[in-house]
Amino acid sequence: MSVYKEKTWSAPEILADLKEVRAKAPLTHVLTNIVVTNWTANVLLAAGASPAMVIAEEEVSDFAAIAGGVLINVGTITSFDAKAIKAAAIAAQKAGTPWVLDPVAAGALRYRTEIATELLNYKPTVIRGNASEVLALAGASGGGKGVDSTAKSSEAVDIAKELAARTGAVVAVSGEIDYITDGKETIAVPGGHILMTKVTGVGCSLGALIASMLAVQKDRLQAAVSASAVFGHVGAIAAKKSQGTGSFAVSFLDELSNLAS
Amino acid sequence: MSVYKEKTWSAPEILADLKEVRAKAPLTHVLTNIVVTNWTANVLLAAGASPAMVIAEEEVSDFAAIAGGVLINVGTITSFDAKAIKAAAIAAQKAGTPWVLDPVAAGALRYRTEIATELLNYKPTVIRGNASEVLALAGASGGGKGVDSTAKSSEAVDIAKELAARTGAVVAVSGEIDYITDGKETIAVPGGHILMTKVTGVGCSLGALIASMLAVQKDRLQAAVSASAVFGHVGAIAAKKSQGTGSFAVSFLDELSNLAS
Amino acid sequence: MSVYKEKTWSAPEILADLKEVRAKAPLTHVLTNIVVTNWTANVLLAAGASPAMVIAEEEVSDFAAIAGGVLINVGTITSFDAKAIKAAAIAAQKAGTPWVLDPVAAGALRYRTEIATELLNYKPTVIRGNASEVLALAGASGGGKGVDSTAKSSEAVDIAKELAARTGAVVAVSGEIDYITDGKETIAVPGGHILMTKVTGVGCSLGALIASMLAVQKDRLQAAVSASAVFGHVGAIAAKKSQGTGSFAVSFLDELSNLAS
Repeated sequence: MSVYKEKTWSAPEILADLKEVRAKAPLTHVLTNIVVTNWTANVLLAAGASPAMVIAEEEVSDFAAIAGGVLINVGTITSFDAKAIKAAAIAAQKAGTPWVLDPVAAGALRYRTEIATELLNYKPTVIRGNASEVLALAGASGGGKGVDSTAKSSEAVDIAKELAARTGAVVAVSGEIDYITDGKETIAVPGGHILMTKVTGVGCSLGALIASMLAVQKDRLQAAVSASAVFGHVGAIAAKKSQGTGSFAVSFLDELSNLAS
Repeated sequence: MSVYKEKTWSAPEILADLKEVRAKAPLTHVLTNIVVTNWTANVLLAAGASPAMVIAEEEVSDFAAIAGGVLINVGTITSFDAKAIKAAAIAAQKAGTPWVLDPVAAGALRYRTEIATELLNYKPTVIRGNASEVLALAGASGGGKGVDSTAKSSEAVDIAKELAARTGAVVAVSGEIDYITDGKETIAVPGGHILMTKVTGVGCSLGALIASMLAVQKDRLQAAVSASAVFGHVGAIAAKKSQGTGSFAVSFLDELSNLAS
Repeated sequence: MSVYKEKTWSAPEILADLKEVRAKAPLTHVLTNIVVTNWTANVLLAAGASPAMVIAEEEVSDFAAIAGGVLINVGTITSFDAKAIKAAAIAAQKAGTPWVLDPVAAGALRYRTEIATELLNYKPTVIRGNASEVLALAGASGGGKGVDSTAKSSEAVDIAKELAARTGAVVAVSGEIDYITDGKETIAVPGGHILMTKVTGVGCSLGALIASMLAVQKDRLQAAVSASAVFGHVGAIAAKKSQGTGSFAVSFLDELSNLAS
């Protein structure tokens, strides 16, 4: 059992956050990797947000300034994308738009680790990753096998707290239990299902939903907790209704779109 | 009730167009945004067309010349893509290949609005967009929230007629009712379902199907009407068979692939 | 009936290969086209492999060296991608990482045909394509309609054998029957279903699964046969359980993820 305070879907503040996303359909600016673009758009639509994948260097600054939240995910970043991604982070910080950094595979590959580390200068509101990624971004040896973590989320909590304290970001470590911390307070979000690791992009789309939540919930820790709790709940229900990894992905969208809030 | 002549799926000329797409499997050259590439390919395959996403500047001119129809969608255009997209439009015009322009989020973002406007020089056969996009492309204030329209399709009909008259393109305004006009004749296509706006890429893939239809139906107004009517019909059936947004997308492809023509 | 020795899913060595993929979850480095990226990741996850789409020129060499297998697919290659793709092929050869070349639409378009031909210098372990692509890569007139073959797989077997003998690669020709040859031995893999050609990316993801198989099976001919036989079996079952092209794709992933090995 976790030593941290637990929150799950049944908490009224989480339902309230989802209700607010649906009421306001916050414009969510998504710069993510090419593997999960379609899936992420469909996850945000199912949640009730309004996703827009604006990636041109010529457009990202204006768009990050008017969006309700921004996601920056370095999963398939190239030198071409890097310019736009930095511009978006700078514009989000300047405009006060909350933004989420997802340092996919940080630690496993030097180029993206350096970019993700540089992006910390632009003060992400939330950092979301698996244990290996969070450890790597914090400067610890993260390990990681490609895009998968080789560490458990519980093993990264202490480092996550330090990273949060040092950067001013809320840090969300995804795993069998999600740990979300602002350096002082740490919340454990249990739930979910192993199938969530057998469909590509579930973690990436969680980062996007945090960005949508940040648009309607100013308490950053709560926003990240709400998105994680929604995912844990939906993942567990969808797993029961599915016959394999293909129908799990379909059911995940169905259940998210039908979730009573 | 619309003041315009209505057409729906049951019209024999629409069934005939779909039958022709299936018989000829027209090679459809798709330059679209990274969010909907996979979905668009699967929609065209379900309809019986032969999609090919050829995007390299080195290849687009040759391919646009041999394709039966071309779709150009600026949804995630960058400065790198812009060169290939212009080359494709120029080659399509030169070769007499019909082509569809989808000015995604025109009006909301300056860079793509300028590119979409410039593309009008190469005489798109059909322009397809939501009301905000059509208004913006016509030079009117389009509004638009990211990729979503803030205007109703009925509010854009008069401007769409002017845009059609001025550019020589058929203009298809998507919405609760689709309005399709060549500047003189205007057809209203009712049908569809709200779920079509809760899955990413439905409108984008309609543009692609119009390109496939143009390969087999020389009457451009009819080609755009046929594609819209097929989508309206399939969307309505799929909505009845689905349990949420995920299964709606799956059912949409199932119903399209099974549609008797 | 084929004059070649046939192998299907029921062969114990094929079950053993799949079991090994699931046990080791080989890190599979995928450089593929933008149409099928998500689908390919989900296919590899359903098979039990660990896919990673690493595409930056700055990262591909390091990653190809540590991966268990690499897929290079030229389906939507641009001049930007070409640099990374060549670097990945060179690094794979140097590190001794087995790699698969999928020359999508070779023959139909000159630019990619030249690139695919140049990639032969870096000694692909396996070449997988449809008949038109294999014929074109071998220097024969391949035909091809966009990404679709205009020749039958049986018509390309002799040329495939020559290509294998000349390049040192195993050549896998996909079609109604798959033919897989190292120039001396040729195996026919029947099975599959016509629906596999109505969903985008089935062939492309087969190339990816071959790369995963190569990570655990040093006999290259056997690795390619095992992947093809798994696909043929899963495709046939999924077709029975589906109601159209949309649910076929979902069932394909379900059945692959549930396949007893």
